[in-house]
Amino acid sequence: MSAPNRVLIAVIGVGGVGKCFLSQLRLLAARRPSPKLSLCYISSSRKALYNDDYSEIAVEGVIEALAASRKAPPSLPEVVEYLAAAPDKVILVDNTSSQHVADAYPLALGLGVNIVTPNKKAFSGPYELWQDILAASTASGAKFYHESSVGAGLPVISTLRDLIDTGDKVTKIEGVFSGTMSFLFNSFAPTDGQGGAWSAEVIKAKALGYTEPDPRDDLNGLDVARKLTILARLVGLPIQSPTSFPVQSLIPKELESCQSGDEFLEKLAAFDSQMEVTKSAAEMEGKVVRFVGSIDVGTKQVKVGLDMFEPSHPIAALKGSDNIISFYTERYGSNPLIVQGAGAGGEVTAMGVTADMLKVVAQIS
Amino acid sequence: MSAPNRVLIAVIGVGGVGKCFLSQLRLLAARRPSPKLSLCYISSSRKALYNDDYSEIAVEGVIEALAASRKAPPSLPEVVEYLAAAPDKVILVDNTSSQHVADAYPLALGLGVNIVTPNKKAFSGPYELWQDILAASTASGAKFYHESSVGAGLPVISTLRDLIDTGDKVTKIEGVFSGTMSFLFNSFAPTDGQGGAWSAEVIKAKALGYTEPDPRDDLNGLDVARKLTILARLVGLPIQSPTSFPVQSLIPKELESCQSGDEFLEKLAAFDSQMEVTKSAAEMEGKVVRFVGSIDVGTKQVKVGLDMFEPSHPIAALKGSDNIISFYTERYGSNPLIVQGAGAGGEVTAMGVTADMLKVVAQIS
Repeated sequence: MSAPNRVLIAVIGVGGVGKCFLSQLRLLAARRPSPKLSLCYISSSRKALYNDDYSEIAVEGVIEALAASRKAPPSLPEVVEYLAAAPDKVILVDNTSSQHVADAYPLALGLGVNIVTPNKKAFSGPYELWQDILAASTASGAKFYHESSVGAGLPVISTLRDLIDTGDKVTKIEGVFSGTMSFLFNSFAPTDGQGGAWSAEVIKAKALGYTEPDPRDDLNGLDVARKLTILARLVGLPIQSPTSFPVQSLIPKELESCQSGDEFLEKLAAFDSQMEVTKSAAEMEGKVVRFVGSIDVGTKQVKVGLDMFEPSHPIAALKGSDNIISFYTERYGSNPLIVQGAGAGGEVTAMGVTADMLKVVAQIS
Repeated sequence: MSAPNRVLIAVIGVGGVGKCFLSQLRLLAARRPSPKLSLCYISSSRKALYNDDYSEIAVEGVIEALAASRKAPPSLPEVVEYLAAAPDKVILVDNTSSQHVADAYPLALGLGVNIVTPNKKAFSGPYELWQDILAASTASGAKFYHESSVGAGLPVISTLRDLIDTGDKVTKIEGVFSGTMSFLFNSFAPTDGQGGAWSAEVIKAKALGYTEPDPRDDLNGLDVARKLTILARLVGLPIQSPTSFPVQSLIPKELESCQSGDEFLEKLAAFDSQMEVTKSAAEMEGKVVRFVGSIDVGTKQVKVGLDMFEPSHPIAALKGSDNIISFYTERYGSNPLIVQGAGAGGEVTAMGVTADMLKVVAQIS
């Protein structure tokens, strides 16, 4: 049954970001009575919770209710069909990092289902998928927002869109796009010239929870390459995939065949001298080494890897696991527009998702 | 006559920001056919251009057409009445810095006219006006956006709103909010320990166009105090006015009675030693002096004035006339979310206005 002034919210994924999002949604629903944000669908990889009449699922206690559900998640086309047939406007919140879910975006958008997500896969995967998403959104008018796919809740994508939409010419984007890489290099090559052995820093970062369960998933540079792909496409470069431009992996060639992350970590110390050489070369020039991504719009060059910076450079002076993203544009001239802060973590990632959801709500209600 | 899918744009003010806005509007209208953004009213302080049937005024050549117009601007209540009677949704773009225009916002919003502006006066003036604006907007649903009232086109207000709307708790906001003050102190007390005499830096800044025509309008701190008032109110502090908290003026007491900016500049050199003492005191602690504003949300303290920072602090390391705004929040923890870049200039100020306009268009069309 259609309800006046109601927006239906469907959530896929109840991991770290998903749980934080639900807690933000709960607070929000209590504070903002209109339009009513009504949870109508939620699923994990194994369970689902929804009512055929789209009636509201209480957000309070929903994780427990989902665990107790006897329903398995329908197939994604079935989920989309269910949402597209709803009597009210719908926002699908994809809190997974699944390529499989991302592949369903064109179908959902084409049927008028709005999408909000931190999932990088749809926007950094095959170029065709990206084109299909744009086409489906344009045709139906359904919105897709994905602020948290780059820099978590930091205003990166919204700022880039504003620059482009108002007619500025972005000439270059440069920054530290990985909280893991930020932490590693701020520890390994701090501006005051100290720092431990590379392998020890990687082990420390893992112990502190700053890396993926398998640190190779950070060190291969692919996560940063995905973020660069997203931003480069937004400025109009037809980047085919995150592997279609130079990406420097910090996994030594000899360790590419390791069977596990643990084996990799055990053997990494033997290659510390390689990173030490890079660090010393930078120090010889009075600089520090950092792992950065850059997009040169004029020459259409995108690259990810190690680079050297003066200690006073904002990229060198970064703290902790912060991200920094610099937008060089015609209007801003020689001093870029800079956004900086935590670029990972459940709460700040969910914040980007929640803020996006509110922007869509403001447009469709 | 009502036109499908048209949004009417009314512009007051054709100074530096106004002209840049019009050129951005012209490019935008050409690139985005739907909804049609149709200029229906434009005025300077002495002239106005509009048609009784709200038919479109060509943006191309509009400055010349306005100069040639024989119509004087109607009174503001008349302008609001004209706009409120329009057959389509209307956005009033106030590109002035006039308190008089700001005073008309509650009337306009109450009658459903949306407002976009870089004008600080409405949001930093009397607390009652601010309350009236909120009430009028809530009652009618009309939107008001004013990103460029703080930090020009930098994503400051939008970021603060996202933090608050998603339930984060802002604990402190701190930064350099004046391009003039930024330039002056980056030159007077650079992190490498050089820098000229204070009065010479002020004269240089004026010659380079970094100050108001009368530099006292920058040095009295009121411009920064207005920006702090705006942000403090957004985080929920009931700041009565920009003079209801401590604001340090850099105009020596003895020069407060100067009849003109020129007289002030001539006599300023005699007080260079005062600023030199402040600078030296900072240097004794290995720090540099900067002119900052801060809002401590917990203690409800807002203040504007000189403070000292380590050379590696982002506020100390600022370049040129850049602004920097740091948001300390519960979610972001000890490392703030930072936005940095040019905070003044016609093009970047107009960019904030144009981006705001697009956000309103997306919600009302």
